[in-house]
Amino acid sequence: MLGKQQKVLTLTKPIREEAITNLHSRMLPPSLAIADLGCSSGPNTFFVVSEVIRTVEKLCRHLNQQSPEYQVFLNDLPGNDFNNIFRSLGSFKDKLSREMVSGVGPCFLSGIPGSFYGRLFPSKSLHFVHSSYSLMWLSQVPEGVENNKGNIYMASTSPSNVLKAYYQQFQRDFSLFLQCRAKEVVEGGCMVLTFLGRRSDDPSSNECCLIWELMATALKDLASKGMIKEEEVDSFNIPQYTPCLSEVEEEVVKEGSFIINHTEVSAVDWNAYSDWNTMDNEFSEAEIVSDGAYNVTKCMRAVAEPLLISHFGEDIIEQIFRSYQEVLTDHMSKHKTEFINVTVSMTRRA
Amino acid sequence: MLGKQQKVLTLTKPIREEAITNLHSRMLPPSLAIADLGCSSGPNTFFVVSEVIRTVEKLCRHLNQQSPEYQVFLNDLPGNDFNNIFRSLGSFKDKLSREMVSGVGPCFLSGIPGSFYGRLFPSKSLHFVHSSYSLMWLSQVPEGVENNKGNIYMASTSPSNVLKAYYQQFQRDFSLFLQCRAKEVVEGGCMVLTFLGRRSDDPSSNECCLIWELMATALKDLASKGMIKEEEVDSFNIPQYTPCLSEVEEEVVKEGSFIINHTEVSAVDWNAYSDWNTMDNEFSEAEIVSDGAYNVTKCMRAVAEPLLISHFGEDIIEQIFRSYQEVLTDHMSKHKTEFINVTVSMTRRA
Repeated sequence: MLGKQQKVLTLTKPIREEAITNLHSRMLPPSLAIADLGCSSGPNTFFVVSEVIRTVEKLCRHLNQQSPEYQVFLNDLPGNDFNNIFRSLGSFKDKLSREMVSGVGPCFLSGIPGSFYGRLFPSKSLHFVHSSYSLMWLSQVPEGVENNKGNIYMASTSPSNVLKAYYQQFQRDFSLFLQCRAKEVVEGGCMVLTFLGRRSDDPSSNECCLIWELMATALKDLASKGMIKEEEVDSFNIPQYTPCLSEVEEEVVKEGSFIINHTEVSAVDWNAYSDWNTMDNEFSEAEIVSDGAYNVTKCMRAVAEPLLISHFGEDIIEQIFRSYQEVLTDHMSKHKTEFINVTVSMTRRA
Repeated sequence: MLGKQQKVLTLTKPIREEAITNLHSRMLPPSLAIADLGCSSGPNTFFVVSEVIRTVEKLCRHLNQQSPEYQVFLNDLPGNDFNNIFRSLGSFKDKLSREMVSGVGPCFLSGIPGSFYGRLFPSKSLHFVHSSYSLMWLSQVPEGVENNKGNIYMASTSPSNVLKAYYQQFQRDFSLFLQCRAKEVVEGGCMVLTFLGRRSDDPSSNECCLIWELMATALKDLASKGMIKEEEVDSFNIPQYTPCLSEVEEEVVKEGSFIINHTEVSAVDWNAYSDWNTMDNEFSEAEIVSDGAYNVTKCMRAVAEPLLISHFGEDIIEQIFRSYQEVLTDHMSKHKTEFINVTVSMTRRA
C-alpha cells in the first residue's frame, strides 16, 4: 500500500508531532526508545522514524537541550524482508545527517521480528510507539465464518454471525495488543495508531469492504470461467477488520492502561497518487503512474498476494490481478472511492 | 567456519559460564541484556545465547530467584542474512522451551545491523557481551602493504613494514572496539571475546598464517597457468589479524575500562569434524564428512568467498577452491594442523 500508506503518514504527521511534543515536555530520557510496529520493508520504512527524530531535534534546539540517543526498533513478522531494511540503513543515516545540519543524536537501530499480538520488548522500555496500516490485520481469520459464501471479507450479504465473528476477533486481538504495549511503554509514554477503518457504524459498509468485494467479484469471475473452483472462493476469507473510531476507543477504555488524547478520522482517495506533488517526496518519480486502477491493483497486490498465493496457488495469481484491475477500472470510472483512516493518539497512564 | 566455530564455542563454554556466574552473583537486573557481536547466520547463531540463558536459568533455580527477562541482541554487518536468523527464531524458542522444562524468562530478540568498530547500542545498556571468531577481522586491509608480493596475508616472507602495518591496524581497530563497548556495557558487566589467534610472538608464525599461505599457493598456481594475473595475487590481502594473547591484553590494559578476569589459549585441529561425536550436536548429520581438506575448504569458503569474488571475479571462484582443496589435501596428509584460539574474559570497571 505504498501510495496510500505514504499519503496517510503525511495526513497523520501533525498528530505524531503533537504526541512527541507533549512527550518531550514531560520527559527527556537520555536514550529515547521509538518503536514502529508493522514497519514493512520499503520506501516508507524509515519515514516515521526520520520524522520523529527531526521533531525531537527541533525541540532540543528550540529549548537549548542536548540531543538524546535514539533507540529505533523496527518490528514486523519474521517473514518481513529485514535484510532489505538493514541494507538501506546507511542511506537513511546519510539522509538524516544531511537534513539535520546542526547534528543529530546517535541513532541505534534494530530489527524486531515477531507478532505485535504478543510481547516484543522488555517491560517499561518504550517511549514512543507508532503503527500505521498494520493493526487492521487480525492474528487469524476468525473461526466460524464458513457460511460467508460468495464473499471474501465482511460484505452486505454476509450473515450476521460472520460480522460478529470478525468483530470479536478484532476485540480479542486489539485488547491483547493493548495489554502487551501497556507492559512495554513507560508511564507517560505515547502511542499513535492508525487503522485502515471506516466512518460508518456498519461493519459491512462499502467504505471499508468494497475494495475486497471487488476482489471477490474478480475471483468469482474466474470461477465462472472454470479457472478456479467456486468452493475455493467460498472458503477464502481475509484476516482483517476495519474498525470505526468508537470500536477502537472502546477497547482502549476497556483495557484501561492508556488515556486517549486525540482521535482523527481521515480519508484518502484510492487514487492517492493523483495528488502526489503535494506530498513529501520519498518515492522515485518512476513509481508515479496516473492510472488509478493500476496503482490500486499494485498496492493491493503488495498486501494480498501472499494470502492469495497460499490459497489459490502461484499459477493463477497473474490472472487474478489482471481480472481485479479490470473490475477496479470499471468501478473507479463510475464512483468516487476513498479509504478511511482511524487514528488514535494515547498516553500510558501513571 | 562452522565446525571450527562450533568446536571453539564448546571449548570456551566454561569461561562464559564462569563469567555469567560472576555477573549473576553481583547483579540480577530485571531485564538482562546479552549481545552476540558478529553472530553470523547459521547453525551456530543461537548457540551462545541459548547457553547463556540456560546458565542464568539454572542459577535462578538454584538460588530460588525469579527468571529475568532476556534482551538478546544479535549483531553482524548489514549484509548478513538476518532474514534467515529471524525465520529460525521460532525453532530456537521452541528448543529452549523444551530444554528448560521448568520454564524460562521471556526472551526479546533483535537484530542489530552494523560494524562493531563503531557504537551499536545506547550507553550503559548491556550486561553480557560475547564475540567469537569475529574480532580477528579488521575494519579494512591495512594501508601500506603494497610490497607484500606473492603473499595474501602476513607470511614469513612478508617485509617488516607489512607486519607492522597489520599490527597497527589491529591496535587501532581493537582499541576502538573497546572504547565503544566501554560506553555500552554497564559497570560490572562482562565481555568474553575469542579471537582466531596464535601462541607465538611472531605475527608471521605458521600457526596463524599457514591457512592463508596455502591459499596463496593455490592462487599462484592458477596464476602460473595463466588463469588469473600475478598482479592480482600480489594486490590481494586479507583484512585479518590473528593476535597472540599478550597483544590482546595490552590493548585492554591501554584502553583501561575493563579488568581481565580470565584468559585462555586453546587449539582446534583443522579437521575439527573428526571428533564430532564429543560435541553438542547442533549440526545435521549430513554435514559431517570425514574428509579433512574438504571440510576446511568448505569452512574457508564460507569465510573468504566474498573477498575472493570481489577481487578475482565470480568466474574463477570454483577453480580457486578446487585448487585450494588440492593444496590442503597434500599438506594435511603430511602435517598436524591446528587453529589457535585466544579467549579473554573481562569485566567493566566501576
